[in-house]
Amino acid sequence: MKKFFLVFLIAIFTLSINAQDSQKAKYVFLFIGDGMGLVHINATEAYRAALKDKIGIDKLNFTKFPNLAVATTYAADRYITDSAAAGTALATGNKTAVETISMDYTRTKKLKSIAQMAKEKGMKVGIITTVNMNDATPAVFYAHQPERSMLKEIAQELLTSNFDFFGGGGLKGIKNTSEFLTKGGYKYIDTKKGFKSVSSKDQKVYVSCPIRDESEACRYSIDQTSDDITLSDITKKGIEVLDNSNGFFMMVEGGKIDWAAHVNDAGAVIKDVEAFDKAITEAVSFYNKHPKETLIIVTADHETGGFTLGYAEMKYNSAFKKLKNQKISLAVMDKKIDEYKKTHTADQAKLEDLLPFIKKNFGLGLKGLELNEWEIKSLENSLKIEMMNKDSKANYGKVSEPLSSTISIILDQKAGLAWTTFSHTGVPVMVFAKGQGSELFKSYIDNTDIPKNIMQIAGLK
Amino acid sequence: MKKFFLVFLIAIFTLSINAQDSQKAKYVFLFIGDGMGLVHINATEAYRAALKDKIGIDKLNFTKFPNLAVATTYAADRYITDSAAAGTALATGNKTAVETISMDYTRTKKLKSIAQMAKEKGMKVGIITTVNMNDATPAVFYAHQPERSMLKEIAQELLTSNFDFFGGGGLKGIKNTSEFLTKGGYKYIDTKKGFKSVSSKDQKVYVSCPIRDESEACRYSIDQTSDDITLSDITKKGIEVLDNSNGFFMMVEGGKIDWAAHVNDAGAVIKDVEAFDKAITEAVSFYNKHPKETLIIVTADHETGGFTLGYAEMKYNSAFKKLKNQKISLAVMDKKIDEYKKTHTADQAKLEDLLPFIKKNFGLGLKGLELNEWEIKSLENSLKIEMMNKDSKANYGKVSEPLSSTISIILDQKAGLAWTTFSHTGVPVMVFAKGQGSELFKSYIDNTDIPKNIMQIAGLK
Repeated sequence: MKKFFLVFLIAIFTLSINAQDSQKAKYVFLFIGDGMGLVHINATEAYRAALKDKIGIDKLNFTKFPNLAVATTYAADRYITDSAAAGTALATGNKTAVETISMDYTRTKKLKSIAQMAKEKGMKVGIITTVNMNDATPAVFYAHQPERSMLKEIAQELLTSNFDFFGGGGLKGIKNTSEFLTKGGYKYIDTKKGFKSVSSKDQKVYVSCPIRDESEACRYSIDQTSDDITLSDITKKGIEVLDNSNGFFMMVEGGKIDWAAHVNDAGAVIKDVEAFDKAITEAVSFYNKHPKETLIIVTADHETGGFTLGYAEMKYNSAFKKLKNQKISLAVMDKKIDEYKKTHTADQAKLEDLLPFIKKNFGLGLKGLELNEWEIKSLENSLKIEMMNKDSKANYGKVSEPLSSTISIILDQKAGLAWTTFSHTGVPVMVFAKGQGSELFKSYIDNTDIPKNIMQIAGLK
Repeated sequence: MKKFFLVFLIAIFTLSINAQDSQKAKYVFLFIGDGMGLVHINATEAYRAALKDKIGIDKLNFTKFPNLAVATTYAADRYITDSAAAGTALATGNKTAVETISMDYTRTKKLKSIAQMAKEKGMKVGIITTVNMNDATPAVFYAHQPERSMLKEIAQELLTSNFDFFGGGGLKGIKNTSEFLTKGGYKYIDTKKGFKSVSSKDQKVYVSCPIRDESEACRYSIDQTSDDITLSDITKKGIEVLDNSNGFFMMVEGGKIDWAAHVNDAGAVIKDVEAFDKAITEAVSFYNKHPKETLIIVTADHETGGFTLGYAEMKYNSAFKKLKNQKISLAVMDKKIDEYKKTHTADQAKLEDLLPFIKKNFGLGLKGLELNEWEIKSLENSLKIEMMNKDSKANYGKVSEPLSSTISIILDQKAGLAWTTFSHTGVPVMVFAKGQGSELFKSYIDNTDIPKNIMQIAGLK
C-alpha cells in the first residue's frame, strides 16, 4: 500500500511537470523594429488608409495581436538609450551603459542572451537583420563586448556562437566576409540563386542580401527591386532552416526603420515598417500551424526622430497621401547629389539643375506640392552648404547632405508629419504579443521585463 | 411535482442572474487626461526621477495599473481629432465629426452617453473637470449639440441632466452661474469653506473652484496655493456625494494638461499630470474598499503638442531637472507681459526690464541655463512682436504672447524636450485599467472601444 502510494505520488508529479512543459513556448520569435515608435507604426497605418481615401487606419498585421504592453527604454547611464544598451536589455534582461554589447554597466561581466540560453537548451537559433550583422542589435544576441564599435571582435564571436542561421546584412569591417565565414564554419550565400537553394538540410548557414550598401546593410525597402531579397524572404527561409523538434529562437530586426528615422525620411520609414510587418506574417503563418507552442513578440529598442503625426503650420490637418510621391530613399538622393558635386563647382551649382529629379522622385513642385518662396530658399541654401562640403555620406547611414534633409522635411511637413531630432528619443515603445504565454505582456513595463517574460514562457535560464 | 420543478427553474435562473450581476462593476471611474499623450506621462515620470538624481522613471500611480491598451483617436472627418469628437467617442462609442457634442456625424441624431445610461440604470453620476464645465469633454457626457461653441445650450442641458455631482470649473458664457444653477435646481458652491461643508447628504450639487480664470477654468496646478481646491479634493468630495448602494459613474477630466500642452508649457503639463494622478489615487482608495465592484479607467482624448523626449540640438542628452526652475505657468507670465504693455510703449520696451522676472520664474540666465546670443535675440524679437500686438490672450487658454512661448520653448529645449505643434496630433493614446473587468483593456484598440467595454463591464445599455 505504501509502495502504491509512492508510485501514485510520482505519477502525479510527472503529470504536473508534463502539464507545465506543454505550456511552454517551443518556438519563439522576437521582432525588433529598430527605432520604431508608436508613431512610426501609426503613421504607416494612417498612410495606408489615406491611399484608400479613408480617414483612419489600415491596420498592420502585428498591431492586431491580442496582447500589448508599453516599455520604457532608458539605459543605465542615459535616459535616451542606444541600440547597444537597449538591445542588451532586450537580449539579457539587464540595464547597461550605452554602447555596451551584452555586458554589465561596469563592462567587466558578460551577460548571457536569451538566444544563447535557447541554444544551450538544444533549440536552434536564428538572427536576422536588414543592417550589418555586427551592428548592435543583432550583436547583443551572440557577442559580449565593451564597445559596439569593436566590429571585428563582434564578428569573431559570431563564428563561435554556433547559431544555426544568420540572414540579412553583411559584416562591416571584415575584408572578405565570404572567406571569414567559410573558414569559421559557416556556409555563406549572397546571391539570389544561392538563396533559393538554401533548405532545411543546411546547418550553420549565413545568407546575405545580394545588394548591400557601404555599411553592409540591405537596401531600403523603398529602393528594392526584384533583384533584392526582402526581410520577409529571409524570415521565411530562416523558419525553414530552423524548424526542428527541439524548437527554435529567432530574432528579426527591421534595422533600416531606424536609419530612415535618423534622417527624418518618413517615406522610407513607412516602406520599411511595411516590410517588417510582412516578415511578421511569416511568423504568424508558422504560429497558425503550432498555435500552442509558438510565441511572437514585436517591439522596438527605442524611438528615433521624435516623430509626430502633426505639424504646427498644418495645424489640425494631415495629408498623408502626399508621401505617395516619394519614390526613392534619401540615400539614393544623396548619391545623385554626390554625382552632381563631382561635375559642378560651387559657383556653377544651381537648384534648377536638380529640381526635375526632386520633382520626379519626391513630388515637390507638383500640384498640391507647390514650393513656396521660403521653401525654394531653403533648398537653395542647403545646396549652397552642400557644395561647400566636400565630404559625402556620414557614417551610420545618417545623411550629412543638407539638401536631402531639406527635401524630406518639406515633403513630410506638407503631409502633416514632423520630427524633433535626428537622434533617438526617450519615448517608450510598444510590445505586441501573440501566442503561448503572450498574456504576460500587458501593462506599462520596462524593456528588461521583455526577455524575463520570454525566459519564463519558453522555460529558458 | 411540476410546481416544484418551476420553482427550481426560477431559483436557478435567479442564481445565474445574480452570478452575472456580481461580476459587473458597480462603481465606474473614467479619468480623461485631456491632451495627455504617452510622452506627457513619461516626461512627468522622468522628471520626478531626475529630481531624485536618478536616470529612469519614478512611476505615477495610474501607470502601475495591471492592464493597458493603446487607442487610436481619429474623428469621422479628420485624422487629428478635437475634444468634442474624441469626447463623443469616449462617452458614446461612436465616431463623429469634430466640434460635435454627442451627436452623430450628420449632426441630426443624439447619441446617449454612458453617464446617461448609468443614470437611467439608477446609478448616481458625477462630472468633474479642471476647465469650464460646458467645455467639450465634460459636455459630451450630458449634452447633445451640433457645435461645441453652443455654450449656453450645453449649460442648459446640464440643468436637465439630473446628474448628482458637478465639480471643478464654472460655466463659460453664463452671466450669473450661481443664479443659473440655483434656479435650475442645483446647490451651487464656489467658496473653500462651502466646499468643505458639502457632504453625502447633498443631492444635485455643483462645486466650483474658488479661483477661476476668464474662461471659468480652475488655475494651473503650478500656480495653485492653499486658497485653491485641487482636482484631488474635488474627486474625493465627489466620491463622498455619489457613494450609494446603486453604484455610480464618475468622469474626471484633467483639462488643463491640454491647455498647457497647447502653449508647449512642459512645466505646467507636468504639474497638472501629477495633480491628475493624485486625483486618481482617491479612486484607488475607493477601489481598495470595493475591489470586486470597482473599475478605474485612465485615458486621454488625444495628444496635444507633438511632445517628445528628445531635441535635435541636445542630441542624446536630457536635463529634465532644469524644469524645476519654472515656478509659474505661461498664463501668469502673460499677465506680467500684459501689465508691462500697459505701462510701456513699443519704443520704450526693453528685454532687460523683464529679464529679472524671467530669471526668477523660469531660471533663464541662471547657472546651467545661460542664454546664448541667439536665445537673447529670439526673446528680444518676440518682445518686439509682442509690443506691436495690442491684443492680449487668445481664447481657449492658448497664449498669443510670443514672448511667453519663446521663454517656454527655450527652457524645454534646454531640458531636452521638444514640441512640433501648438495643436493636437493624431498620436494614439494610452488606456490604463484597474479593477473589475479591466482585463478587457488590452491590445491596440480604437477610442470607441473604451465605452463599449465599460458598457459591458458595468452592464449599461
